[in-house]
Amino acid sequence: MAVDLELTPKTKRAPGEPCCEPVVYPDVDRERALRMAEVAKAIGDPIRLQVVDVLRKHAGKVCVYELEPLFDVSQSTLSHHLKKLRDAGIVDSERRGLWAYYYVLPDALDELAAWLG
Amino acid sequence: MAVDLELTPKTKRAPGEPCCEPVVYPDVDRERALRMAEVAKAIGDPIRLQVVDVLRKHAGKVCVYELEPLFDVSQSTLSHHLKKLRDAGIVDSERRGLWAYYYVLPDALDELAAWLG
Repeated sequence: MAVDLELTPKTKRAPGEPCCEPVVYPDVDRERALRMAEVAKAIGDPIRLQVVDVLRKHAGKVCVYELEPLFDVSQSTLSHHLKKLRDAGIVDSERRGLWAYYYVLPDALDELAAWLG
Repeated sequence: MAVDLELTPKTKRAPGEPCCEPVVYPDVDRERALRMAEVAKAIGDPIRLQVVDVLRKHAGKVCVYELEPLFDVSQSTLSHHLKKLRDAGIVDSERRGLWAYYYVLPDALDELAAWLG
């Protein structure tokens, strides 16, 4: 594990005997925790989770116009959710004419899935 | 999938041809999405994710006093994080004397892990 100030134990010790056996340090270092937490936070909303579900199942790329009827939210709300997913590195889009086509980035969820599994 | 007003397609249709093939509906219904999003949101913070990592690796139950030196946050911040994890159904605790002992609830992460995997 990389040396990380945030994981360095404090020197403070409470008086008396330890109340339980010493715990192990996290296997997940701070950098990896930040990466996975960002992904988890992005899917920590039911609409965004369902959007990812649709995009993962869909073989191709999906334009916002086709996503919109699936969810009872405004187009601006949906765009806001898609931006959060893009900022977290879960989805990306490409523009063709008027439309932005969204897709889930390969491996975007793998690290979190492996840790959870 | 359960009937869910929030997943009912809107009747609004844009003029002209569809811009891409129709997408599939989410396999994940609203109720399941809410459950999994709550779990994801709770681990959507690097400290909380590392706390879960420690608790999962630890065979027994861990008291807050032993967790605290692992993270450079105050006890009240750590307690706040533990409360969020408990509210999301990921951890629970039992009190023995002065100390609260925390542990990860069995199966708490399984649904999200299965969906991600």
